[in-house]
Parts: sequence; structure tokens; C-alpha cells
Amino acid sequence: MYKLNCIEGGVCAAEGFYADGIHIGLKKEGAKDLAFVYSDTPCAIASVFTTNKMTAAPIRHFRAKGEFEGNFVLINSKNANAMTGKAGIDDIDEVLDALQSAFPQIQNPVMSSTGVIGVRLPKAKIIEGARQFDLTRRDGISASEAIMTTDTFAKRIAYEVVLENGQSFRIGAMAKGAGMINPAMATMLCFITTDAAVDKATMQAILDECVHTTFNAASVDGDTSTNDTVLVMANAKSGAFHAEAFKEALEAMMLFLAKEMVRDGEGATKLVTYHVSGAINAHEAEIAAKALSNSLLVKTALFGQDPNWGRIASTIGASGIMCDEAFLSIWFDDVCVYKKGELLFNEELEPIAAAVMQKSAFTIHCDIGLQDGAFTAYGCDLGHEYVKINADYRT
Amino acid sequence: MYKLNCIEGGVCAAEGFYADGIHIGLKKEGAKDLAFVYSDTPCAIASVFTTNKMTAAPIRHFRAKGEFEGNFVLINSKNANAMTGKAGIDDIDEVLDALQSAFPQIQNPVMSSTGVIGVRLPKAKIIEGARQFDLTRRDGISASEAIMTTDTFAKRIAYEVVLENGQSFRIGAMAKGAGMINPAMATMLCFITTDAAVDKATMQAILDECVHTTFNAASVDGDTSTNDTVLVMANAKSGAFHAEAFKEALEAMMLFLAKEMVRDGEGATKLVTYHVSGAINAHEAEIAAKALSNSLLVKTALFGQDPNWGRIASTIGASGIMCDEAFLSIWFDDVCVYKKGELLFNEELEPIAAAVMQKSAFTIHCDIGLQDGAFTAYGCDLGHEYVKINADYRT
Repeated sequence: MYKLNCIEGGVCAAEGFYADGIHIGLKKEGAKDLAFVYSDTPCAIASVFTTNKMTAAPIRHFRAKGEFEGNFVLINSKNANAMTGKAGIDDIDEVLDALQSAFPQIQNPVMSSTGVIGVRLPKAKIIEGARQFDLTRRDGISASEAIMTTDTFAKRIAYEVVLENGQSFRIGAMAKGAGMINPAMATMLCFITTDAAVDKATMQAILDECVHTTFNAASVDGDTSTNDTVLVMANAKSGAFHAEAFKEALEAMMLFLAKEMVRDGEGATKLVTYHVSGAINAHEAEIAAKALSNSLLVKTALFGQDPNWGRIASTIGASGIMCDEAFLSIWFDDVCVYKKGELLFNEELEPIAAAVMQKSAFTIHCDIGLQDGAFTAYGCDLGHEYVKINADYRT
Repeated sequence: MYKLNCIEGGVCAAEGFYADGIHIGLKKEGAKDLAFVYSDTPCAIASVFTTNKMTAAPIRHFRAKGEFEGNFVLINSKNANAMTGKAGIDDIDEVLDALQSAFPQIQNPVMSSTGVIGVRLPKAKIIEGARQFDLTRRDGISASEAIMTTDTFAKRIAYEVVLENGQSFRIGAMAKGAGMINPAMATMLCFITTDAAVDKATMQAILDECVHTTFNAASVDGDTSTNDTVLVMANAKSGAFHAEAFKEALEAMMLFLAKEMVRDGEGATKLVTYHVSGAINAHEAEIAAKALSNSLLVKTALFGQDPNWGRIASTIGASGIMCDEAFLSIWFDDVCVYKKGELLFNEELEPIAAAVMQKSAFTIHCDIGLQDGAFTAYGCDLGHEYVKINADYRT
């Protein structure tokens, strides 16, 4: 057996990892806008990137490197370096070359960016700023702040995993993303560091599994940004590893961060869990759960705290999955509002269901009533603030 | 050759058709809420219905009739008669039986409903109200008003088609739907009447073709409501028909109504045409065009009058179609903001592009730059009003 302990430190919680975030003038009013994550020994790196065909330059740059071990990630906010063509790749090479000249201990550095699409990287500013880095700093808080865009709070977490034989390893993470409700723009970045003695292939396989039920379950409809990135760096310094424990910790951390992103959804006031069960298979349950978390009508009903279950039924019906009103049931937390064709909703039930919707977090459970397929997705409401943030994003 | 003349009269423009809309107490403050369309001779009827699996009772009732000729459609607003199971069908039978007792000239009547999901039809009120109908009235305006829900204006149109041999026929239509931006709730209903001498099979084939480039192009993502309905009734009274002219008139009318619905989109301030060309085929162009018209980020940028072309590129990239930034070009009307990998956007171009977006109607043209696949979709912006209308819909 093993034990998971939540610990401090974010991406610096694991042995041998350093990080910081500084202000170099990309954001206004002194806000931190450039971060690094550094390991003093080489790391195996696992990665998951956006499926968007307009892949941003940092991701194309990373992929072009092929197989490699590295020990450094540079992250800037305010500029996505997307839709910038070959010039965008050249900009990254120039920045990273300058960085290696300044810090010879850096090996195979990579870059990650988030911000506005279609503007060339302010590389002079970034090179000048990055030269100020102090690679001995272990400030996971500042790093998590520097990668924020429209996020209203920084997101980080770390676990210590203690194994039965007394050995232990640590995993730390930070993420940015405010609004999985609009993943096409609000880039999701997540950086995870670990001193577990895990090889790249094992780590990649575990990461792929965990992404499906965490970040991808919070994603609305696979409509990912040009820059979405999850990187895991493992330097093996603890000498310890346990696959099951590693997976459990990684999944718990990623689910926590995914939910934090939804909770921080632009203009969101509620975190809603959509649990779909009884579909003919897990894939159809996933389609229905994501259709619900993505529906403008459901989102606005949530914002209005209106237990408008008809919109939920209609959204499931429109999602294309196999379903029939005679077998469907719908709950708001424990309150059943529709049961296998029976109209339960009435004047007595309405305030009880409405009370559930006034909570800042609750579950909408839809049982399709056919087979055993289940999936859980996470979403938020859509209010006036979302329109305001996104109508004026660039100004 | 033939000539199309726009004429008055809506669904009463064609010979032998009668219609009216009255208030029976479903809506507040005397607003019309119950309508009929009647032909004094039997009609061939073509139809297109929602693909939503939670199909509303009126549609299941219509389909259960099999092949039939009919001369009467009863339409109510405020209640969708959806998610009401077998009882919902029985309610329709009861209403229509009562109607036929009161008006023996009615043959094979059908019903159409729009409004809140999951509430039984107020059938006593509807039966009592329908008995007040005067089947000799030809008031297409009142009928088009009675079928409105969140629509801010009534939608109708009619054409006279004059053939080369001097013969002519008429087609009239009315529609409701405010917000193809939220087709999952804002049911789209359209009723078309014609005195053309067209058989059912021909009419159905023409209707199916026209729906694809009109109502379905204005639909966001195929996410249709439980009640969406297009019915065409033909009584052949003119004795005239010309397939090409009929199709041209029908398509023009349906496109007009589809655009009117988008223009009346809940909270919308702009009608945007998304023209995608250069995709590897028409299907991929359609996917991209609908992804754009459906993107929250694009919609909010439109509302903010922000020429944020990066969101457009990202949305195309995320749509899953074959594309590459090196071949993509983007225009706002005639203003090219991105040309095959070249970043044209700068401080000089920004106000010119922004000026286009200040118009109440304009075109976003994206050329994928690969093959000849093209499609045109129609959408609108998403502003504060949308959130307000939909957060408080039931109250």
C-alpha cells in the first residue's frame, strides 16, 4: 500500500526542481509574466498537446526536437506565438539560444506561450528579461502567477507519495486556464515535475490515461486552443517509483487543476459536475456529458439558477446518442426532476430543485436508462461577465 | 424563363389558403398565441423535422399518421408538448377531435407547438380557444404573430411565380425562431403554403435540398430543438408548376426567413455571413463555417466589434478539417487580415477591419487554400441580452 500527502511547493515540491516568475513588461503594472521551470539534472519529458491544426510555434518547435531529455521550460504569457509561421519557430530558437548562452547549465530548453494569437513574440524583451532569472530560486508560487492570463487565481498543487517500503517521491504541478468554457482561446497550460524514478514511456502512458478523465473531461467539446500543453518532467532523484500510486496522484492532481480551471471559468459562478450513466457505452456517455457542459442554454439556465430540466433533456436528445424519453431520468444532486417518462416537476419540487442550483457546486445526473456506459464531465455557467471579458479581450 | 415577384399575404398569398392568429390566454396581455393554416381543398404535405431524439409529441403524432393529405395545421405557442410521453400524443388527439367536431370541413388536421418543454398541453384552453376560429379569415399577419415566442418581430414572405406561358402560382410562408444561436430551445417553425400543382414526392425532394443551404446553414451545429418543423402544403389550385422556378422561389424564401431568424437572434446585434471556400470538399467547408458561427469566442468578439482574426483561425484549426496556416486567408468583407501565412494585421489595418465589424451585417470569408469545397453559414453575435433572455427564460 501507499499514502498520498498533499504538500506545499507546487512545481518546486519535488527534489532538484527550481522555478520562478518575474515581471519583464509583457503585462501591465508589474504583474509577473515570464516563468521558468528548471531541474539541476536532465529529465524524461512526457507531453500532451492540442489537437488544433493551427498548432502554435512552441508546440511545433517541441515536436521538431524528436526524442530528447531536457531540464528547462521557459513560459511567457500575453503572446501565444500562434499563426506566426516559420518566423515564430525562429523566434523561439533565438530566445532559447540566448538563454543557453547566459545559463550554460540549461540543456535542451523548450518554450511554452499563452496569450494573443497572430502577433510575433516580443523576443528582445523576453531575452533581456530571461537573463535576470535566478536559477537557484524555488518559488513555485511566483511561477504559477506568471503564467496566468484571464485567470483570477493561480493554480498549483503537490503530493508526496509514501510507499510501503518507506521510500517516497513527490509530484508538483501548476496550471493556467480560466474558462474551459472557451478552450479555443483560454489556453490550458499545465507543468508537472516529479522526482519519481519513472521512464518516459511509462510516464507518457499514465499521462495519456489521466488526461482523458481530467483535462479532457473539463474541456467543452474537444475544441482546444492553438497552445494547449501538458508537460511532465521527471528527474528520478528520489530513486522511488510505484506505477499505481504515481497514477493515482497524477490523476488526483490533474482533476483538481481541471476543476480549478472550470471554477475560474471566465465569468463563471458555479462548478457543475455532469454525470451521465446508463448510456449504451462510455463513449456515448462522454458525448452526452460534454454536450451538456457545452450547451449555451444549459449554461445560461445555470446562471439564472433555473431548474429548466427540459433544456437538459433536449440537449441529450440533440447530442446524437441513443436515448428515449421513456428511459431517461434527471437529478439535480439528489433531487429527481424527471423519472423514466414521468413528469415529476411541479410547484412543490421547483423550489427544492432551485435550491440545489443556488449552490456554488452541484451535480446534474442524467441516467439514460439503457446500458452501463458512464462518464463525468465538468462545466460552469455562462453569465454577463463572460461576455464582458471576451468582447473586450484584446482591448 | 420565369419571373419571381415578392407579394403580400404570407401564408394566405396562395389561392384557397386561410389563416389567422388569436389570443386564448397562453401568452400574457392579450398577445396572440394560437394560429391555424387551412386550405379549402386537400393538400399534399412535405415536411422536415428535428433530428433531436427527444422528439416532441406533435412530430411523433404527425409521423404516426403515415401517408395522408390534410388541410389544416393548428399551432400553439408557450408550450412545446415535449417530454410529455404518450399523454402528450393523447392530448393532441383530443384537441384535434374537438376541432373536427366544431369544423367538419377540417380533414386530417395536424398540430405544431413551441414553448416550454416538459409541461402538459393546456388542452381545455386550446379546445375552447380553437372553437372561436373563423376559417374564412385570411390574416397571415396575425397567424405569424401568434406563433412567436422570444421573437421580436414576425417573419413572413410570399412570392408569385409567373411562367413564360402566362401561367402563375404563389408560395407564401411564415416562420418563428429567435436565435438559431440557441436552436436547442428556440424552436424553429416554418409553414409554407402554395397553390402550385406539385406532387408530394417532387415537393419533398425540393424541400430537402433547400433546407440544407437555408435553415440548416443558419443552424449552429445541428443541435436542433425537440420541435423544429418545416411544413409545406400544396393544394394545386393554380394548375401551374415549374420545378426550377418553384425551387428558386422556395430557396429564396427559406433563406430570407433563416436570415431573419438569425437577425432576430436572442440579444443579437449583427447578422454575419461565414463564407468558407478552398476546403478539400463541401462537407469540410460546412464543418468549418458552422464551427465559426457556433464559436462563443467568435460570437463575443463580434459583439465587442473586435477584429480578433486569431480566434477565427483557431476555431477553424479546432474544427478538425484539413487546413494549414500557410494556406489560410481571412477577410472581413473586402479587408484581408491574414493572407497565406502572412501577418497583415497592424495598427493601420485594425481600424479598417474594426469599421467592417461595426456594420449590422457583414461577411467573414475564410479561404482554406486547398481545394474547391465551399459553404456559407449564417450567425450572429452573442451579447449581454442573450444571457439575460436565457437565464430568465421561464420566469
